[in-house]
Amino acid sequence: MMQALTWTSLAPGIWRARLGAPTSVTPMTLAAAPPALDSLTSLPDTPMPEFSFSPCARTDDNRIVIRFSLTEMEDLYGLGLQMTSVNHRGRTRSLSVNSYPTADSGANVAPVPFLVSSRGYGVAVDSLQPATFYCGCTQPTELPLYPKHRATTPNWTPDVPFHCWEAVIPGNSADLYFFSGPSMLDAVRRYILYAGGGALPPRWGLGFWHRVPMVYSDQEALAEMAEIRAHQIPCDVIGLEPGWQTFSYPCSYAWDPGRFPDPAGFVQAAADKGFHINLWEHGYVAPCCEFYETVRPHLSDYANWSGELPDYTQPAVLTAMQNQHRRDHLSIGVSGYKIDECDASLPSHAHFPSGLDGVQMNQILGMLLTKNQDALFREKNTRTYSMVRAGNLGGCGYPFAFYSDRTDLREYVRMLCNSGFSGLLWSPEVCGASSGEEWVRRMQVSAFSLHTQLNAWASGVKPWDFEDVAPIVRNLLALHMRLVPYLYNTLADFHFAGKPPIRAMALEFSERSCASLDDQYMLGDALLVAPLFPGESSRRVYLPEGGWYALDTHEYYAGGQWHDLYLPISRLPVFVRSGAILPLMPAYDHVPAAGISIPLELVCFGAEDTSLVLYDDDGETFGYETGEYGYLYLEATRVDGRMTGHLTADTRKVQTYEISNWIFVE
Amino acid sequence: MMQALTWTSLAPGIWRARLGAPTSVTPMTLAAAPPALDSLTSLPDTPMPEFSFSPCARTDDNRIVIRFSLTEMEDLYGLGLQMTSVNHRGRTRSLSVNSYPTADSGANVAPVPFLVSSRGYGVAVDSLQPATFYCGCTQPTELPLYPKHRATTPNWTPDVPFHCWEAVIPGNSADLYFFSGPSMLDAVRRYILYAGGGALPPRWGLGFWHRVPMVYSDQEALAEMAEIRAHQIPCDVIGLEPGWQTFSYPCSYAWDPGRFPDPAGFVQAAADKGFHINLWEHGYVAPCCEFYETVRPHLSDYANWSGELPDYTQPAVLTAMQNQHRRDHLSIGVSGYKIDECDASLPSHAHFPSGLDGVQMNQILGMLLTKNQDALFREKNTRTYSMVRAGNLGGCGYPFAFYSDRTDLREYVRMLCNSGFSGLLWSPEVCGASSGEEWVRRMQVSAFSLHTQLNAWASGVKPWDFEDVAPIVRNLLALHMRLVPYLYNTLADFHFAGKPPIRAMALEFSERSCASLDDQYMLGDALLVAPLFPGESSRRVYLPEGGWYALDTHEYYAGGQWHDLYLPISRLPVFVRSGAILPLMPAYDHVPAAGISIPLELVCFGAEDTSLVLYDDDGETFGYETGEYGYLYLEATRVDGRMTGHLTADTRKVQTYEISNWIFVE
Repeated sequence: MMQALTWTSLAPGIWRARLGAPTSVTPMTLAAAPPALDSLTSLPDTPMPEFSFSPCARTDDNRIVIRFSLTEMEDLYGLGLQMTSVNHRGRTRSLSVNSYPTADSGANVAPVPFLVSSRGYGVAVDSLQPATFYCGCTQPTELPLYPKHRATTPNWTPDVPFHCWEAVIPGNSADLYFFSGPSMLDAVRRYILYAGGGALPPRWGLGFWHRVPMVYSDQEALAEMAEIRAHQIPCDVIGLEPGWQTFSYPCSYAWDPGRFPDPAGFVQAAADKGFHINLWEHGYVAPCCEFYETVRPHLSDYANWSGELPDYTQPAVLTAMQNQHRRDHLSIGVSGYKIDECDASLPSHAHFPSGLDGVQMNQILGMLLTKNQDALFREKNTRTYSMVRAGNLGGCGYPFAFYSDRTDLREYVRMLCNSGFSGLLWSPEVCGASSGEEWVRRMQVSAFSLHTQLNAWASGVKPWDFEDVAPIVRNLLALHMRLVPYLYNTLADFHFAGKPPIRAMALEFSERSCASLDDQYMLGDALLVAPLFPGESSRRVYLPEGGWYALDTHEYYAGGQWHDLYLPISRLPVFVRSGAILPLMPAYDHVPAAGISIPLELVCFGAEDTSLVLYDDDGETFGYETGEYGYLYLEATRVDGRMTGHLTADTRKVQTYEISNWIFVE
Repeated sequence: MMQALTWTSLAPGIWRARLGAPTSVTPMTLAAAPPALDSLTSLPDTPMPEFSFSPCARTDDNRIVIRFSLTEMEDLYGLGLQMTSVNHRGRTRSLSVNSYPTADSGANVAPVPFLVSSRGYGVAVDSLQPATFYCGCTQPTELPLYPKHRATTPNWTPDVPFHCWEAVIPGNSADLYFFSGPSMLDAVRRYILYAGGGALPPRWGLGFWHRVPMVYSDQEALAEMAEIRAHQIPCDVIGLEPGWQTFSYPCSYAWDPGRFPDPAGFVQAAADKGFHINLWEHGYVAPCCEFYETVRPHLSDYANWSGELPDYTQPAVLTAMQNQHRRDHLSIGVSGYKIDECDASLPSHAHFPSGLDGVQMNQILGMLLTKNQDALFREKNTRTYSMVRAGNLGGCGYPFAFYSDRTDLREYVRMLCNSGFSGLLWSPEVCGASSGEEWVRRMQVSAFSLHTQLNAWASGVKPWDFEDVAPIVRNLLALHMRLVPYLYNTLADFHFAGKPPIRAMALEFSERSCASLDDQYMLGDALLVAPLFPGESSRRVYLPEGGWYALDTHEYYAGGQWHDLYLPISRLPVFVRSGAILPLMPAYDHVPAAGISIPLELVCFGAEDTSLVLYDDDGETFGYETGEYGYLYLEATRVDGRMTGHLTADTRKVQTYEISNWIFVE
C-alpha cells in the first residue's frame, strides 16, 4: 500500500522525507557542502504545489516505490547528464553511473537523481542505489484507465494518459528532498544552494585546454606548448595522459623518470609559458605504487584490467593517496586531475571492505575521488579546475568538469542543456574531426561551454590542424578568451546564487516552444547558443520574447518566434539578449595570473537602460569564501539620446578588473 | 566467501546443486515435463570435467554468485535466443525476458539461463529472477592478475586473461543443474531430455503460415485463402490478428460479430480449403471480457495500454481463460494461438496477488500462458503448433515457436543458431521487404527453419507480391513443402532423443573454424544452411569435414574448408551432407491430414553405403505418447556397382508414409 510521505522542513521551500533508516554514506551526505542558508533565505518561501493526490511511497522487501501526481501538460527534466532527451516525459530513466551506455536506458556519466517538473518543483532521491524514474509511463490501476480498441481506433498508439510519475529505489532506505519553486529555476537554485552552492573554478580554468598524446615526454609537451604560442592559440592548460606515470592501468601515480626526469622543472617551465598542468589518473592502484601495501588491506575482491581498486570510503586509503599526490604533484604546482575510469568499472557483485558492493561503489567512486583530490587544493588555498568521469547527487560545488568517452555532438549539446538542471559542469571536448567543417562545429560547441578542451590523447591532432579553417578556430578561441570575464561572472552566480551557468531553454523560459528544445541553450544570462551540426548549413532556432543580436554581426532578431538561419562555417551560432552588458577582456594568450590587472571592454546590447552586476576576486584562491570578493555595479542609460555607461558602485576587496571602455550596440 | 557447490545426482551425467530454500514456482518446475529417463540412460554416464578449482558459490544479502573455472581456449554458448553473438566468451549477458531490447545486454525473447561450454558441459540456473552471466569477463582478485603498462604495451587493449565465468542471481534461492557431455551436443541433449524432451508439433505446422492484416473480416480472410490457392502458394495456416476480437489492447477473446458473424462456419470453411486458423491474443483482460469479473480479484496493481493483467499463477484465472477459450475457440477447430505482449510488459515494481513482482512475472508470463493454452489442446488430443513472445528455462517440450518484434535478418540467423543450445523453436518470420531480392533472402531463411511464416498483419503484403521474384518464392515454398517429412523427422529426434533440430555449427562440429560462426547453421542432420543477406551476391561458407552437395544443383563441394560462393538470387544457399538420405513428399498445397497416405521420394547423397531411420505417426494427435508411432529403417548400399535403396525394417503402428522411389546423387 502506498502511504503519503511525511515531510520535514529543512529551509524555506525545502523539505525532506525519510524512508527507512538512513545509511552511513549517501551521495548527498558525501558530496554536499553545508547549505548556503543566506542565499536560500533570499528565495521566496514557496509552498509545495497542489497535487491531485499526496506524494506517496511504498516499501517492499528490497525496493522503495515513490509516486507523485502528474498533470496532462506537465514536463519532466533533469536526472543528470542525460544524452537522449531533455524533456523526459514518457521515458524510463535508470540512473546507473555509466560514461558509455550502449542503450537509451537513462544511465549516464552523472545520473543525478533530481527530477525537475515544469510545475515548478524538484524532487531529489538520495540513495547509494541507482534509482529508476518512470517519467509518466506507468499505470497504477488505482488511477483511471482508458482502454482503446486497437482494431478500430484510428492511428492507435500504445500511449494512454498517464497520471503519475514514479521512482523505484533498490534497497530499503532513501532520503527524498523536495525543492519548491515557484519556477523550475527556483527549484534548481534551491537544490544547488542546499548542496552548498555551485562550483567556482579558478579564472584560468576558463581558458582553452589541450591534452597531449598518451606517451609524450616533458620535452615533447614543452615543444607543443611553444608551438601553441607560435600559432597564437590561446591556451591555459596542458593535460598529460597515462604515459606520465611509471605504470598505468593500474596506476603508479609516479612520474616516469624516462619521460619526465625533472617533474618540478617541467611544471615550472610550463608555468613560465603560462600553462597549468593537469594529470590523468584513475583509482586502480598498481602493485608498484608506493602506497600499494598501505591500501592492500582495503582492496575489493574484483579487479579490472588486472588492476585492483581500494575502498575509497576508508580514511587510510584516502590519506595514502593524498600524501603521495601532495608530495609528488601539488607541491610542484600541478593544477588538477582528470579522474578516469570511475564509472561502471567493477561488476555488481564486487565486495568492498566497507560493505559496499560494486553497484553502490559505482554510484559514488567518482565523487569519492573528486572530494579527496579537491581537498588537497583546498588545504593549499589554490583552486583547481579538474575533470572527472562520474558523478552523482549533491556534487555541484566541486570545480570538476564531467566528460565521457562518447563523442556524438548532438548528445553533447543535450548534455549541456541538461547540465543546468542538475547543477553540473559538462565538457563537450573535441577529440578529432573528419573535416574542417566538423572541426569548427565541434570547436564552437566547446568554446561556448564552461570547459573548452581539445583532447588529443589518441588522435594527436593539433589546434591548428585542418588548415582550411585554422583562422576560424583561432578567432573562435580568441573570442572565447575575451569572454572569460563574462563566463567567470556566470560561474559566480552559480556559486553564490545557485544559478546554473548553462541552462536548457525550458529552464530559462516558460514559453511553450521551449519545452522540449534540446539543440540550443543559454550560456549565462546573455548568450543563446544554437549550434549547427556537421553537414548543416542552416537550422531553425527559437528566440524567446524580447530582442536578440547576433554576437558576430550585431544583426537584430525579433524574439518570440522561430528563425530559419543560414549560417556558413565562418558565422557564429550565438545570440545576445537585448539588455545584456557583455564584459570582455583582451584576447590574451592565457588568462592573467592573480594580481595582474585586466582591462574590460563593456559591450551593451539594446536601446533600453540596463545594468550588470559583475563579480571580481583574485580568481585563484579560496579567499572568496571569507569575503575576499566584491561586485562592480554597472549601468547603461540613455542620456541626451545617447547610451552611456557608468560604474555606480564598487564593493570589491580584490580588484582585478579595470573598466577600459564601453561599446553600445543598438 | 565462495564455497564449493554440493551436487546431488539426478540421472546419469546430471546433477543439481541447491542454493537457499527452493521457491514455490520456478521456470523449470513450471515448464518441464517429467524427465525422459529412458532416453537419458541411453547417454553415457559421463563425469563432470576437471576444473582448475571446484565450481563454487556465495550468497550475499540479496544475491547469489556462482563461479566456474575457465580454460584459455574455452568457448561459451547458449543463454537462449541471443541476438548479437553465438559464442559469448568475453560478454556479459543479463537474462531478462524482452522481445525488443535496445542494447546488447543479453536480454532477449527467451533468455534461457543455460550456459553450454565447449569443454562439453552445460549449467542451467533455475530461478524466477533474471540471472546475469559474466562469460569470462570478471577478475576475482583471488585468481592471477597480469597488469600491463598501457603507455608502453604495443597495441594495448583492456583485455586480460580471464580465468572464470560467473553468474549473479538476484534473491537468495536458485537451483543449479549440471549436464555433462562428453560433447556439447550431449550436454544439450541431457538438458532437453531432462526437461521431458523436445516439442513435436503437428505435421501441418511445418507448412507455410500466413498472417492477414489486423482488421480483416471472415470474408476477407477466406478470399485471401482462395487467392493463395489460385497463386499456387502452399499454405497450411492463416493467422488472425487483433481485429478478430470485439476488443483488444486489452483483450475480450470474443469473436467480433461484425467481422466474424459465424466463427464456426469460418473455421470450417478454412478447414475445407486445407487451412488451420491461428488466433492472436495476449494476457491483458478487457473489462468487457466475459471472465473479467472472475479474474478481477487476481489483477496486478499496474496496467499496460490501460489493460489489466491477471495473475496467471492462480488456478481460478487459468480456468476462467480455458473455459472461454475451449468453448469459443477450440470447440470450433481453432488450431493455435499467437501469444503476444508477454515480455517486459509491466514495471518491475508491479505486484501480483501471488506475491510475485513485475520482474518475476516477466520471466514466466509467456510460459504460464503457453502451458495453459497447450493443456487445452492436450485435453482434446489434438496437437497445436502455436507462437509465443516470451520463454524461459525448461519449456523445450511445448510446440510454440518464438517470435519477436525485431526484423534484422542477421539477428534472426544468429537466433536460429542459438535456438539449438536452449532447445527452442525460433520463427524467422517475414514481415515485409524493400525489394524482391530482400524478399527472397528473408523467405529463404524462413523456409529453412522450423516455422515458416509471412506475417503481414501490418504490411498487408501477399506471398506473390514482388512480381520479379514471385516464381522463385513459389518454388522455394514448394521445396519447403517437399521437405516436410525430413523436417518432421528432425523434430521427432528433438522429442525422443533431445537433439535440437537447428544447430549452430559449433554445436555440431568441434572443428576450430566452427567455434564462432553465426551466419550458417545445420537444419537437421543433413542440411547446412548458409543464408545470403540483402545486398550480397556472394559469401564465404565453411563446410566441415566430409563431402557436401548443393541442394539445388547437386554440385559437389569438398568439406574441411572454406568456400567462396557466388549465389545469384535464383540459387539456394543450402548444402546436403554426403551420406544423407532426404525423404521428400510431393509439393502439396497443404500438408495432408491424418490418415491420408503420403508417397515419399528418397534422395540419397554420396557414393558410400548409408542409412536413415525415419519416424512416422499420425502427425496430429498425442498418440505418439502412448506408442502410436514407429520407424522406417532405410538403407542405401552399393550392389554390383550401383546404389540401391532398401527398407530393412518397419516398426510403425501408424503408417502415413509410403515409399515411392529412390534417387541417387553421387
